Amino acid sequence: MRNAEDYAYALHTSNQIAAIRLDLFSSLFTSPRQFGGFELSLDETVKRLEIKANRLRIHSLLSTSEAGSGHPTSCLSSADIVAALFFHIMRYNPNEPSSSQNDRFVLSKGHAAPLLYAAWAEAGAFPVEKLSTLRRFDSDLEGHPTTRFKWVDVATGSLGQGLSIGLGIAYCGKYLDRLGYRVYVLLGDGESAEGAVWEAAALAAYYKLDNLVGIVDANALGQSQRTMYGHDIESYRRRFEAFGWHAICIDGHDMREILGAFGEARNLKDRPVAIIAKTIKGKGVSFLEGKEGWHGRALKKGEELERALDELQNADRGELKSEISSPSTTSDPQLTSYELGEEVATRQAYGIALARLGDVNPFVISLDGDVKNSTFAETFMHAHPERYFEGFIAEQDMVGVAMGLSSRGRIPFVSTFSAFLSRAYDQIRMSAISGANIKYVGSHCGVSIGEDGPSQMGLEDLALFRAIPHSVVLYPCDAVSTEKLVFEAAKHKGIVYIRTARPKTPVIYRSEEKFRIGGCKILRQSKRDKVTVVAAGVTLYEAMKAYEILKTEQIFIRVIDAYCVKPLDEKTLIEAASETNNSIVTVEDHYYEGGLGDAVLSTVATTGIHVHKMGIREVPRSGKPEELMSAYGISAERIAEKARGLFHV
Amino acid sequence: MRNAEDYAYALHTSNQIAAIRLDLFSSLFTSPRQFGGFELSLDETVKRLEIKANRLRIHSLLSTSEAGSGHPTSCLSSADIVAALFFHIMRYNPNEPSSSQNDRFVLSKGHAAPLLYAAWAEAGAFPVEKLSTLRRFDSDLEGHPTTRFKWVDVATGSLGQGLSIGLGIAYCGKYLDRLGYRVYVLLGDGESAEGAVWEAAALAAYYKLDNLVGIVDANALGQSQRTMYGHDIESYRRRFEAFGWHAICIDGHDMREILGAFGEARNLKDRPVAIIAKTIKGKGVSFLEGKEGWHGRALKKGEELERALDELQNADRGELKSEISSPSTTSDPQLTSYELGEEVATRQAYGIALARLGDVNPFVISLDGDVKNSTFAETFMHAHPERYFEGFIAEQDMVGVAMGLSSRGRIPFVSTFSAFLSRAYDQIRMSAISGANIKYVGSHCGVSIGEDGPSQMGLEDLALFRAIPHSVVLYPCDAVSTEKLVFEAAKHKGIVYIRTARPKTPVIYRSEEKFRIGGCKILRQSKRDKVTVVAAGVTLYEAMKAYEILKTEQIFIRVIDAYCVKPLDEKTLIEAASETNNSIVTVEDHYYEGGLGDAVLSTVATTGIHVHKMGIREVPRSGKPEELMSAYGISAERIAEKARGLFHV
Repeated sequence: MRNAEDYAYALHTSNQIAAIRLDLFSSLFTSPRQFGGFELSLDETVKRLEIKANRLRIHSLLSTSEAGSGHPTSCLSSADIVAALFFHIMRYNPNEPSSSQNDRFVLSKGHAAPLLYAAWAEAGAFPVEKLSTLRRFDSDLEGHPTTRFKWVDVATGSLGQGLSIGLGIAYCGKYLDRLGYRVYVLLGDGESAEGAVWEAAALAAYYKLDNLVGIVDANALGQSQRTMYGHDIESYRRRFEAFGWHAICIDGHDMREILGAFGEARNLKDRPVAIIAKTIKGKGVSFLEGKEGWHGRALKKGEELERALDELQNADRGELKSEISSPSTTSDPQLTSYELGEEVATRQAYGIALARLGDVNPFVISLDGDVKNSTFAETFMHAHPERYFEGFIAEQDMVGVAMGLSSRGRIPFVSTFSAFLSRAYDQIRMSAISGANIKYVGSHCGVSIGEDGPSQMGLEDLALFRAIPHSVVLYPCDAVSTEKLVFEAAKHKGIVYIRTARPKTPVIYRSEEKFRIGGCKILRQSKRDKVTVVAAGVTLYEAMKAYEILKTEQIFIRVIDAYCVKPLDEKTLIEAASETNNSIVTVEDHYYEGGLGDAVLSTVATTGIHVHKMGIREVPRSGKPEELMSAYGISAERIAEKARGLFHV
Repeated sequence: MRNAEDYAYALHTSNQIAAIRLDLFSSLFTSPRQFGGFELSLDETVKRLEIKANRLRIHSLLSTSEAGSGHPTSCLSSADIVAALFFHIMRYNPNEPSSSQNDRFVLSKGHAAPLLYAAWAEAGAFPVEKLSTLRRFDSDLEGHPTTRFKWVDVATGSLGQGLSIGLGIAYCGKYLDRLGYRVYVLLGDGESAEGAVWEAAALAAYYKLDNLVGIVDANALGQSQRTMYGHDIESYRRRFEAFGWHAICIDGHDMREILGAFGEARNLKDRPVAIIAKTIKGKGVSFLEGKEGWHGRALKKGEELERALDELQNADRGELKSEISSPSTTSDPQLTSYELGEEVATRQAYGIALARLGDVNPFVISLDGDVKNSTFAETFMHAHPERYFEGFIAEQDMVGVAMGLSSRGRIPFVSTFSAFLSRAYDQIRMSAISGANIKYVGSHCGVSIGEDGPSQMGLEDLALFRAIPHSVVLYPCDAVSTEKLVFEAAKHKGIVYIRTARPKTPVIYRSEEKFRIGGCKILRQSKRDKVTVVAAGVTLYEAMKAYEILKTEQIFIRVIDAYCVKPLDEKTLIEAASETNNSIVTVEDHYYEGGLGDAVLSTVATTGIHVHKMGIREVPRSGKPEELMSAYGISAERIAEKARGLFHV
């Protein structure tokens, strides 16, 4: 029976770190390698790496069996590749996981997490016996890698995202940090069906990322059946080459071929490299090798596990070490001076604000998906071209890149139409799991975009971003509040969503006004207010028009600008409602479920305050903005009607 | 000045429909074509199609200028291709848009909608003068194509989705309908950066869809800058070929080359065909051709428009016609007999129910993303293999395919882990805009999946699906309710989301119980109930355990199974709350914002009922299900604690 003590056998050997210099000569296979001041022949290197790979296999089996769940066969197919990377190819200091000098590894096939943990343990990052805590509630070794584990830059586990993440890190290394670290991404073959992989492939070649290597572990078996291409690794090579990569096919269990491929990769300029490794799922254990039905199945402790370990247990106790070649505060941005009443679209104010932010904060990066002239990310691009990343029409990849950049300490501002952020929601979800520091900016929200029609309208974006734990959701109505909130967003650590609109709106705030996360502004109030109307963006202006309409009828409403939808200013809202017949009307250019209305409801949930929601209750259509706002019930007239109706006035 | 009457010029000519027989001979370029019983030489065909294309250009400019917005230059680059398709290549009856005999056209580059409408008008579908109503509130000719326009199968406008839709229709034609209709998808080059395009490319080749043709309009200009590949059309050809397609490069403005390519496509077996057309954005108007800055800009009426029309207005008034070769009820499914107390996961019950549904309903199709052994879609697959579609790890494409199948009258049940439906949310959003009849099924919801960790947990899916107007959201707790609700879902027209769970749960309902959309079940009630607890799925069982705990303390709670989260049973909820201190506690294995709690709040918003939400308020982690439910505050103990605390008992 295996238990934690059995891990100790490797403890002594793993903790000794020595230097292996990686010099590449054209005569790759005959030059000696240094080891701890002594030279290792290629044969010896191969032998030692094979031993290491074997050990990784053992760890993977032991830890998953101990946990009672996990994906050991997916680990077994990758073990040789990972051993080569961790104990020969990559340069890093396991004691300084965030060092900017380190090469970086992204496990896109996140379910092979046990293998990743085993590699770091063997590299000396933490005691090997900790591996037996895999998947436990009190352990950092989660079922799929999260940033709780400090050697992981970005959480993975939702397939097809790792190449984008690696792209982001590599882009940072080549163009922003200008450091020599290399990025290695390990993908599964099944996951290569994910379109996001090909978005990243296109972008990586376009940006000539020769510091990026993608390895496809082609073990031919998906979760529930064989993959589309099986072991036809040439089909992967053709595809990567067609996308502009250099691609090398190898036997993924032949250490010489593995090392040769990595060597070839290092020598190539101006293009990323894909290594397509033909592997066997379950490699190393005869009754697992190539067998269907073993995806995501841990071996049972006892006879089943013992049989497997016996086959692997010929491990010599050789020693391997990896080289330790291991790798700023900003002032306040200047404010734009807007005139009261000046008509400026919040999307345009965003661009201006971001450029000013970029003037003083070198960590801010702008990313956009070929709509920079619509989102006004181009204003930043013109001011700071070296810090603008064009993501093209590939939103998923753009968010993955942002995750990679965030892991390198940058502050990415990711913009596109709010509707199209929905394209990348899985990546957005995972960015939250990674604890990334990303600011998402969705323009063209609501029916107020007009004639382009519903495919271009963001109508569920507030719901999407509210759902993320601890997200901040901002919805400024004018240029002044937009600018200030963009600056606040940059100061805030964590995920922020800023919703901007297409139409021009008049500036209503003086430049001295302050805006804070968790705040709101009362724009109209009196002692005779019948109800509090809470709105944001274009509907804030509609609410103020409704105020004027009702005023002529001697009906008064309180009007609140909820420029921060999450967290809402609970105190102010409850106070206001308590003075206005315990009633709130919410109005939003957003679908009825999940947005501002639900946010207010959630905030006053236990108070008994009545909340009357107004929002879009149908799939809308093309038309003029004013027509649409009226037809879908969020115009000034409709707000006035609602307020009148509430108290039979 | 142009106005509606000017459209009339084409009215007479367009309304005459004659037959053009499309016979393909190997000597394509010398054989005559028939026209109205007369034979047209290739030269004459080309000439007439060029005239038609010119007319489409004129319409595109006129309609967008009239509307004051739109994307004319994107229309101009595609006009020759569309003319060839509508007036020579495709077989369809414009008077029977939904005929199953019709070839089908999907405008993936949806912003070229004016061109599409022009083509249908010229084909005789509706009067040409209607084109001047483009983008008006009262017109079916919306800014991007929606199914309000009856010649559109599926709404487009969010780039990169059309090839999946076309794939779905083609798959239907080849394997399900077994009819000879062919499917043509027109894509932009910029949109080919979208990963969903490559998902579809892989799947289409895998399924040998030789009735599918994708045309890439490679005009080299995106919205805000040049595309990645510019006019290097070979790079598109290489990529499609690497993905298993036959690809042909042509000059997209040479009508002979266009016709030749379509002819070549028709002759190819077992592989889809991509035609990469090198085009000029703005083709036909000298001051627009190839110029940056014209994306999404309509020409101003007056001098600017006149100059453009003058260049195009050499149009002969030739006549062209298209051939009119123009193309069930079910019983109730049998119920599975479950025992009370029998432990069955709702995901497993889903598979069994779907298979039974498939026994009696030939329109039901199951689609899954390589997790069929986890979602239990495989149960359907074993029973009805010819109606199971394996989508592989490509969720976006899977949803696009479902859209295509829905447009062919099928009832697609699309399943994967609930977390991974987030990967396809843009497609899901567009499916709502299309009014598609798709049932989405997300398994492995919540923290209750346990050790796999947060990347695999669906925690925002209720928020996603609630946001969609008129969606139905179902969350059955046991096998009996799951089966009945699957059957209800199939009967319902429109989008339904069914949330299933990983763990086994005991059957609590007898087989005679009825479940309806908009209903709920009161499982525990008495005259002494202090509060109403509303739960679903795993938390329903936690609530019932909490009931038992509290009962021993002489505290009583009402327990409601909200198996239908949307629409909620408002009447029952309000009645229950009115009898239980005007208070409701909601408990969900879902993030705190956007789910069941907000749904209840929304339903009781104007009643003053106090709602105490319990949900997941952090990004969770790996661990045992019970540990996680406790740590994240949704376990029986925590529910009991909440109930006690409410009234200081």
